[in-house]
Amino acid sequence: MSSDGALYLQLAETIARAIRSGTLAAGERVPSVREMARQKGVSLSTVIQAYRSLEDARLIEARPRSGYFVATRGPTLPQPETSHPPVDSREVDVSSLTVQVMRLANDPDYLSFGAACPSAELFSQDRVRRAVTRAAQRHRRSLCHYPIGGGEESLRRAISRHALRMGCELDSRDIVITNGCIEAITLCLRAVTQPGDIVALESPTYFGFLTILENLHLRALEIPTHPQHGMSLDALQLALDTQPVKAVLVVPTLSNPIGSTLSLDDRARLARMVSRHDVPLIEDVLYNDLAEHDHMRCAVKSFDTTGHVMMCGSFSKTVAPGIRLGWVEAGRWQAKVEGLKAATSGAQTAILELAMADLLTQPGTEAGFRQLRATVGARVDEARGIIATTFPTGTRVTDPPGGFILWVELPPAIDSLALFRACRTEHIVLAPGTMFSATDRYRHCIRLGVGGRWDDAYRAGLKRIGEIACQMVATATVGARRRPRDDMSVEPVLAD
Amino acid sequence: MSSDGALYLQLAETIARAIRSGTLAAGERVPSVREMARQKGVSLSTVIQAYRSLEDARLIEARPRSGYFVATRGPTLPQPETSHPPVDSREVDVSSLTVQVMRLANDPDYLSFGAACPSAELFSQDRVRRAVTRAAQRHRRSLCHYPIGGGEESLRRAISRHALRMGCELDSRDIVITNGCIEAITLCLRAVTQPGDIVALESPTYFGFLTILENLHLRALEIPTHPQHGMSLDALQLALDTQPVKAVLVVPTLSNPIGSTLSLDDRARLARMVSRHDVPLIEDVLYNDLAEHDHMRCAVKSFDTTGHVMMCGSFSKTVAPGIRLGWVEAGRWQAKVEGLKAATSGAQTAILELAMADLLTQPGTEAGFRQLRATVGARVDEARGIIATTFPTGTRVTDPPGGFILWVELPPAIDSLALFRACRTEHIVLAPGTMFSATDRYRHCIRLGVGGRWDDAYRAGLKRIGEIACQMVATATVGARRRPRDDMSVEPVLAD
Repeated sequence: MSSDGALYLQLAETIARAIRSGTLAAGERVPSVREMARQKGVSLSTVIQAYRSLEDARLIEARPRSGYFVATRGPTLPQPETSHPPVDSREVDVSSLTVQVMRLANDPDYLSFGAACPSAELFSQDRVRRAVTRAAQRHRRSLCHYPIGGGEESLRRAISRHALRMGCELDSRDIVITNGCIEAITLCLRAVTQPGDIVALESPTYFGFLTILENLHLRALEIPTHPQHGMSLDALQLALDTQPVKAVLVVPTLSNPIGSTLSLDDRARLARMVSRHDVPLIEDVLYNDLAEHDHMRCAVKSFDTTGHVMMCGSFSKTVAPGIRLGWVEAGRWQAKVEGLKAATSGAQTAILELAMADLLTQPGTEAGFRQLRATVGARVDEARGIIATTFPTGTRVTDPPGGFILWVELPPAIDSLALFRACRTEHIVLAPGTMFSATDRYRHCIRLGVGGRWDDAYRAGLKRIGEIACQMVATATVGARRRPRDDMSVEPVLAD
Repeated sequence: MSSDGALYLQLAETIARAIRSGTLAAGERVPSVREMARQKGVSLSTVIQAYRSLEDARLIEARPRSGYFVATRGPTLPQPETSHPPVDSREVDVSSLTVQVMRLANDPDYLSFGAACPSAELFSQDRVRRAVTRAAQRHRRSLCHYPIGGGEESLRRAISRHALRMGCELDSRDIVITNGCIEAITLCLRAVTQPGDIVALESPTYFGFLTILENLHLRALEIPTHPQHGMSLDALQLALDTQPVKAVLVVPTLSNPIGSTLSLDDRARLARMVSRHDVPLIEDVLYNDLAEHDHMRCAVKSFDTTGHVMMCGSFSKTVAPGIRLGWVEAGRWQAKVEGLKAATSGAQTAILELAMADLLTQPGTEAGFRQLRATVGARVDEARGIIATTFPTGTRVTDPPGGFILWVELPPAIDSLALFRACRTEHIVLAPGTMFSATDRYRHCIRLGVGGRWDDAYRAGLKRIGEIACQMVATATVGARRRPRDDMSVEPVLAD
């Protein structure tokens, strides 16, 4: 696995993991460049490159004439605790806020921590461009041939091979190519629910899921979720036992926004649970390739023996965000999903499918995932450091094992919509916590995405969010002293 | 309008029109090459080319030493009459038959008259390929940039300009790019209906519409439709007055399968009707560029002053069938449609949008439409000739002013499902009439698409359909004589 110069990244990642897990403690000496090179059987320059990237990530620091040491990470923050959403299901109404936030998050005039998408610069644009032009040249007839069916066989085979890394043996004929993962999940929900049905999902959850539920007139039943260990399966069990849940929608690896990841045991248990209750599980594996540890990439689908897991994925976070292709293997609902796709949206563009198949089967793909993981992992570490030093006392922040999203729990005095508005006036965008729930549990939380641009302006922007939050805490404290019985009135976020 | 060598096609089209309209009668002498060249101010070779293409289309014939004459078209067939669907709405259940027929229709081992798609060879594959590779090279960042919003501005502007040809002044910001026209229509229906609602549409109608209705749990109210003049607006008026119609779905130009085209007066009247009743009209302009006469391209939308017309289109029949892009301008439901698209499917791939914008704005586009019209028009004429000479007595066939679809009404003794099965054993595919209605009105009808491959094997295949149909009529007659009270038992088409 030592392909094209990514060796230093693998090494950096190994050391980063040791630091994050505490195997290498803050202040501890890191082996010298020479020692490390001998130990790992790599060149001096590889180690130097690795150490440099760890320095950039502020995970280690060089001390003059003494060598490298694990950086003292400043005051570390605790992680949020398990969420406690209400036990009943809710109608969903988050889309108007979401649309506004996402519009700003993609406005180049703003410093954006609002989106959960890696920026174009994190990918090899030339590699993707070559794949597309090659596909257009080799298969030019495809450009003028009306596509039908579930997708190009070469892409379905490539996805089937890719799924082996997630422990799944999928028959390529059962895979349906979709217009991104969003469409895959929408099709699954349309295949197994009727308006008014209840869907169980993590809490907090990806606002995009809530918007889909809202549009399909489904009710959200939010399940308590731990920021590290994911959805509480005991709570889910209770829900399945007591409520007419028609589908479970879950992101077992790096759930958005809290970055939680189910253990292998829980994955197996979840597969058994939905099978026993004869309820479909819609599993989103969008982020599996961004998880730091191999076992975290293993899909719940790999434990599915009864076809109850509908597995949805895409490569827009990991290979080429600008190619809108997702996929689904819908288990026992495969024919239904395939029929719905053909009837209400039609096939995807063959030439893009051929290009994606090419990209997925090229030797550099795995190295690309590693490089992306290392780059965004370093940013996440740096962002956590900034949050620890500049955000108000009482702040909690997640420590996700991969990806580029942080979930920040601020002191309860802070209304994230007010914080969003205040930051907006300074051209900084964040995602207020209310977007991530059909309840209003997360009013004092925010999601920060650091997968976009990343430079000193962004570092300063992140600090500035912390400063504004500190001011809000101070004002709230003073206000509370002055008018102890006054409820804090909250302007609607959309009123401009 | 004399761009790149298509002059001869324009000339051929003008003469073809005169023949079809009866201005030039069968057997009448066509001006000599020399006369025509002088008359039109074109070169001799242009006229020769034009006459050759008219000969290929069997519209004119050369008689030795006498010159060219309008071909005696053999026994011409009458067109079908206005349809008479039942007056109540129906649940829809056509998709299983449709899936089977379409699978065969796209199987290269079959002679296919089953699909309504022009084949790749009718397009300039290199022109499309160049547009795609150019877009990928110029906008390589787009390939790695997550697309959001309703689509690339350049494509929306190009569509807005294109819509001027249909008499519409659309604001490019109101256009939403979709995954083909199918998705555009699905989004419109989702925006304005709830499960159980009634949708009025032509009868017979495109089976794809019926499949969408089926999947959205909508009821089809089929409106009587004349093969030339289109949907009866008197009947629609009655339906709007007496039934809770929630949307009208219509293809005013070259309706699939019967090729009917509303008059300009009827287009204006239709716009007024839906406005007065406050009912959305979903107008599919997919085939407008294939209509022979300019006024037929004018959209109902161009008469819409109240935003009640939702206009849906795509370029998969006219520019590049392999690029899956459609569009919609949804009038007063624009925000709803845009929200639904973003939430449940996401944006389209930007690079394809940029390529399509390029293709639409290149100077050759208009000439491409003309060439396609002339080529498929000649095939339709030839196919009608074959049908007239080989199909059973009592057959009626449409004479559409453009496009590549024929609707054939066979003698009532013929069950089109049995005909479909019989042809299938000889590896010939046609679309049985039952696919085109939620009722079983069209059991003795078939749709024939001649936009695919076209060669002697196809000509022979079409004759063979006629022969098999004749045999079936003969057998039915004999059978009826032998067992006068026996109902003809019909095996289900799908039982193999």
